[in-house]
Amino acid sequence: MPRQRVLSGMRPTGALHLGHYHGALKNWVRLQQAYDCFFFVADWHALTTHYQDKSVVERNVYDMVVDWLAAGLDPEQCTLFIQSRMPEHAELFTLLAMSTPHSWLERMPSYKDQVEKNRELATYGFLGYPLLQAADILIYKAAFVPVGEDQAAHVEVTREVARRFNHLYCPETPILPEPQALLTETSRLTGLDGQKMSKSYGNAIAMREAPEVVEDKIRRMPTDPQRVRRGDPGEPTRCPVWAFHQLYSDSDTRAWAEQGCRSAGIGCLDCKQPVIEAIQKEQAPWRERADEFLANPKQVHWIVEVGTERARAVARKTLKEVRQAMGLAY
Amino acid sequence: MPRQRVLSGMRPTGALHLGHYHGALKNWVRLQQAYDCFFFVADWHALTTHYQDKSVVERNVYDMVVDWLAAGLDPEQCTLFIQSRMPEHAELFTLLAMSTPHSWLERMPSYKDQVEKNRELATYGFLGYPLLQAADILIYKAAFVPVGEDQAAHVEVTREVARRFNHLYCPETPILPEPQALLTETSRLTGLDGQKMSKSYGNAIAMREAPEVVEDKIRRMPTDPQRVRRGDPGEPTRCPVWAFHQLYSDSDTRAWAEQGCRSAGIGCLDCKQPVIEAIQKEQAPWRERADEFLANPKQVHWIVEVGTERARAVARKTLKEVRQAMGLAY
Repeated sequence: MPRQRVLSGMRPTGALHLGHYHGALKNWVRLQQAYDCFFFVADWHALTTHYQDKSVVERNVYDMVVDWLAAGLDPEQCTLFIQSRMPEHAELFTLLAMSTPHSWLERMPSYKDQVEKNRELATYGFLGYPLLQAADILIYKAAFVPVGEDQAAHVEVTREVARRFNHLYCPETPILPEPQALLTETSRLTGLDGQKMSKSYGNAIAMREAPEVVEDKIRRMPTDPQRVRRGDPGEPTRCPVWAFHQLYSDSDTRAWAEQGCRSAGIGCLDCKQPVIEAIQKEQAPWRERADEFLANPKQVHWIVEVGTERARAVARKTLKEVRQAMGLAY
Repeated sequence: MPRQRVLSGMRPTGALHLGHYHGALKNWVRLQQAYDCFFFVADWHALTTHYQDKSVVERNVYDMVVDWLAAGLDPEQCTLFIQSRMPEHAELFTLLAMSTPHSWLERMPSYKDQVEKNRELATYGFLGYPLLQAADILIYKAAFVPVGEDQAAHVEVTREVARRFNHLYCPETPILPEPQALLTETSRLTGLDGQKMSKSYGNAIAMREAPEVVEDKIRRMPTDPQRVRRGDPGEPTRCPVWAFHQLYSDSDTRAWAEQGCRSAGIGCLDCKQPVIEAIQKEQAPWRERADEFLANPKQVHWIVEVGTERARAVARKTLKEVRQAMGLAY
């Protein structure tokens, strides 16, 4: 039995942080064992929102691949590649555009919300984001797409695009399978200030943050704002450090922290110490693996090269079928 | 001095007719001597409006190339190729999409008019038509685009797209030159019924129409509706045949027809005879050349093959510069 294919991508807009790891990458590492995983650097997608600053993407592409490898993605088990190296995606995007109603894209909540916040995003490319994503997915005939709940609408549009294509061009023998959303349990890690962890909020810990920086960042973290003096009792549910304990501490440590906080038995720095140690412990193997790859950048390029060629073989095959079905195979 | 480049395309939506010849193709034949002409089969563009019937495009691509060669396009002098064989166009289209405001496309008069007439055209691809056209033009750094007046807006958008790209990514050394519209004198031939000649109106004479069909079609043409009997005097300006005389007859013949009509000195069939003969004479060399190519379809494929490779070399070079400028050259 061949393994079913999973496709997912990440936008290279900055060094990956613990939020990315727990929210997606950890899951990818798990998935690679059970599925034929295709993971790609979504650099064109990054351009939809970062088209005004080319250095963002340029800087981060290979760095992100190193983060992936550091986290445990194994190029022997999964296929890693870069979107912009695949003109096949652009071609399928262009072809699917012909039969995709404009209204399907305009009604996407992500489009409306973001454009309201930032008029610079009202571009043709940003409007087409979900359609480019559909091309990314359909060109590999992926069976599953791991998504957070907020992206379920994008998989739904991909399914509609596939259905319409099959209906128009190959109703007897559908070429583009409708992918399923793979809703997996992931943890959303909040940032140092209790908000969503995001580089742009300045509240993130990078995956490969130096141990002393991790320590410093956690020690400076705000805690329960009502616990002003060491002697004041605190309330964990008001404290962003508590969110880190949920993810990083065992039940004994959590009980110790909860009780020590509410009774003022421990200070905030005491409470933070096990979190600091747990993060540093989690990061140690990442740093170790990353150091190996950073010492040998050619190997990283080679891994991407091999992945890109593997992906291209699949993409070309699908595109050939699509061209044939659309009457473009002369 | 290298010749300046001219780019133009035609949608393969049916056999070319005399309207196409006099409105565009005749001009192409002239241009190929003075410019480095790139002429392409715009099959993706045909899909924007004909996506529901794949046989239209499939049937007409090579047939149109034969019409071109029959009209006198010389593959030694110009470059002939097929758009869908150039994924490079799709890639540049995708890249330009990122920085092109949606509103530039929505305000195009062609979009609004057509969608109002036919809701099936309200697709993402049809909206992006002028942007795909911009990619077609800019990827060859064309200096000139021969256009009818109704397409001047499309060249204008291409100029805006180029300007914005250069401004964002390479302000010091612009990569994409702004093309100029080449407004050339062409003749708009009306159809058999006096309306615009169009296959879909059923009022066209195909470039390679058989001589006896030409004769039959012209003989059945309506004339001045007020000239009911042979003895009634007619008025040329009310007669669609008169438009054909303007294009096909010398001044002596025109004077003869005008006077004969107004005085009822000649009948309508008399008046039509020189038009029939002129069209048949114009078509004879086309048919002769077409017959040669039809007898040797491999040669036509080979001409397109050579043209496609020549175009690809130029397209790849531009795309490489574009990727570099956008920070996508890893």
